[in-house]
Amino acid sequence: MSLIVQKYGGTSVGTVERIKEVAKKIIEYRNQGHDLVIVVSAMSGETNRLIDLAKQLSDQPRGRELDVLLSTGEQVTIALLSMALMQMGIPAVSYTGSQVRILTDNSHNKARIVDINEHNLRKDLKEGKVVVVAGFQGCDEHGNITTLGRGGSDTTAVALAAALKADECQIYTDVDGVYTTDPRVVSEARRLDSITFEEMLEMASLGAKVLQIRSVEFASKYNVPLRVLSSFTEGGGTLITAEDPSMEQALISGIAFNRDEAKLTILGVPDHPGIASKILGPIAAENIEVDMIIQNTGKDATTDFTFTVHRNDYQSALNILNNTAEKLGAREVNGNEHIAKISVVGVGMRSHAGIASTMFDALAQDNINIIMISTSEIKISVVIDEKYLELGVRTLHKAFKLEQDR
Amino acid sequence: MSLIVQKYGGTSVGTVERIKEVAKKIIEYRNQGHDLVIVVSAMSGETNRLIDLAKQLSDQPRGRELDVLLSTGEQVTIALLSMALMQMGIPAVSYTGSQVRILTDNSHNKARIVDINEHNLRKDLKEGKVVVVAGFQGCDEHGNITTLGRGGSDTTAVALAAALKADECQIYTDVDGVYTTDPRVVSEARRLDSITFEEMLEMASLGAKVLQIRSVEFASKYNVPLRVLSSFTEGGGTLITAEDPSMEQALISGIAFNRDEAKLTILGVPDHPGIASKILGPIAAENIEVDMIIQNTGKDATTDFTFTVHRNDYQSALNILNNTAEKLGAREVNGNEHIAKISVVGVGMRSHAGIASTMFDALAQDNINIIMISTSEIKISVVIDEKYLELGVRTLHKAFKLEQDR
Repeated sequence: MSLIVQKYGGTSVGTVERIKEVAKKIIEYRNQGHDLVIVVSAMSGETNRLIDLAKQLSDQPRGRELDVLLSTGEQVTIALLSMALMQMGIPAVSYTGSQVRILTDNSHNKARIVDINEHNLRKDLKEGKVVVVAGFQGCDEHGNITTLGRGGSDTTAVALAAALKADECQIYTDVDGVYTTDPRVVSEARRLDSITFEEMLEMASLGAKVLQIRSVEFASKYNVPLRVLSSFTEGGGTLITAEDPSMEQALISGIAFNRDEAKLTILGVPDHPGIASKILGPIAAENIEVDMIIQNTGKDATTDFTFTVHRNDYQSALNILNNTAEKLGAREVNGNEHIAKISVVGVGMRSHAGIASTMFDALAQDNINIIMISTSEIKISVVIDEKYLELGVRTLHKAFKLEQDR
Repeated sequence: MSLIVQKYGGTSVGTVERIKEVAKKIIEYRNQGHDLVIVVSAMSGETNRLIDLAKQLSDQPRGRELDVLLSTGEQVTIALLSMALMQMGIPAVSYTGSQVRILTDNSHNKARIVDINEHNLRKDLKEGKVVVVAGFQGCDEHGNITTLGRGGSDTTAVALAAALKADECQIYTDVDGVYTTDPRVVSEARRLDSITFEEMLEMASLGAKVLQIRSVEFASKYNVPLRVLSSFTEGGGTLITAEDPSMEQALISGIAFNRDEAKLTILGVPDHPGIASKILGPIAAENIEVDMIIQNTGKDATTDFTFTVHRNDYQSALNILNNTAEKLGAREVNGNEHIAKISVVGVGMRSHAGIASTMFDALAQDNINIIMISTSEIKISVVIDEKYLELGVRTLHKAFKLEQDR
């Protein structure tokens, strides 16, 4: 008998019928002898409905009162799911974030979990109850309701699993696991049975948006085995765990990509220490996030400096950079908003050479020009012309034989 | 400067536009220098929407989880109203029932308020904030969310006013006060400037449903001046207070009526002690509420016994009574579901004789036959044939000169 925390997202509990399906799934698990803590989101559409109401009353709804408003979404779901379970003869009890006491800091709308009082939950579990907890919410030390920000329900589930030392935290979603790449681009994409936290973090931040990054970080920190499964189909999903040194690691686990990037370059900047912060400081001051950064020494004691930003920020970043160029006496500024990024990710590349050359060779054979390269310990990213994105992903998927079961 | 508790019902906060109007009204009061605690209901329709959801999942939604569900309705309103006030530049802060700590017993769906911790509210008022509290809800000593039952928001407002020793508790509703009778029946019906708690209790329980009886009882018990006003029109409404012995009391304050009654009679019951409980016991056992009761001694040591019930309960009451008649050896059972009750109410009748005869004379002149009579210290009720109801109300309204301003 094990303790499992399950999280069902908004789509999984989007209608009364779906809530009934979730209740049945929970009962199946319970009949296998598991203790269950269930974390739920607001019914799909509900959070947006509430935000729309708020927007009609406030220019920029935020802060304490927005959390009071939004937290009702999950509160409705916990009550309905508990009722459904009880109607099916299963003892169940619901908890809001405040009732559990999921203590957070007081950063309304994006609070961080500080502590969880698992005392009452344990007591209910001991009494054979299914415990249903509202995701996404908590309260600060003065009892003010807080929310964890979008996707916070995943974080709630992982945090509860960590606090209760659960055997597994299962995240039910509308996909049935983590794939080697996006199946819409590569039809041979394969669901991974397992992946490490590190790989998942690289995959998630690179655009394979299955799980909230924060919840993966949290699971990694507290070593909570995390499983992504579908609410709608059967199957074991993908298990995300710490790296197991005894395991033979796949070289490459997956290929992530991102088409929302734009590239800016400032050429012929007189080179002296601190030049990078002079270029990026004004960008950061406008809250524009920079992704890849590359600096090359040019000729005549000047340097060329390239970075990428989200495509939405391209125009304002370009304006800022033109200003900076004038101040620094740079030769030229140029940019390209038709680029895309492809990354191969895998902990196996730590101990294997030649990944980069396999990658570059494969792209070269299809005449795909590499505009930028950036590497980390378990990832190699390249920036290419946007129009070659799908071709590049398919080529790399094949080059690393990701379609083959291992 | 005084402390006022204002309560706005579901219709008053039924849309975003109406919430804005309520915010403006609150600001007007605040500009007059008052400290304000605002109690709000769920937006109209919301509670029914939630109950509908629950009914799709549970045969008979009730208990703890129903309260978790329903309490979200008011929680949405407190957040939206606070946002509206802040958007208009007024500091405001919202409280759920649990956050105030409105402590109740644990009778879910119909909890009773046990204690109110007014500490935080006082602190916020001192800081110049408008305090917005969710009506209808509280929590038990273990932090379980409870609700006070339909109309409980009025009770919340009165209880807060009592706890804070407020100068007045204002109940905003969709009528502009308490009338001498229903203006739809008597076009000359006049809004009363004031009425006593006792009179209001008689009027409310007799069908003039402006305020929840419970809230009037509560206000009476703690001597909280209660004012009923309209959210939509200007005017001072009706003040409901304790009886002021120095005041010249009107003879009659109003005429209440009720057309939902039915009458049952059991004739020729062998008379001996305890016969009333033998007749009414089986009725009460089926949770049928009995209103008027009359017993007359008949001939030959038998008695005739008549009582009224809600019309919806007529058929089941009749079945029970037929059973009882057989057991007791009664002669006959008959009933009438086409009756109506009219009551004249006024504390003035305590010190004035002749009210009853004025009432009976007026009805007699219109050839309205009186079927039953029942009296209390401040009320005389008659049961008549339903078809004479409107005529009877108009006749009595005129007989007691209620259309005249005093």
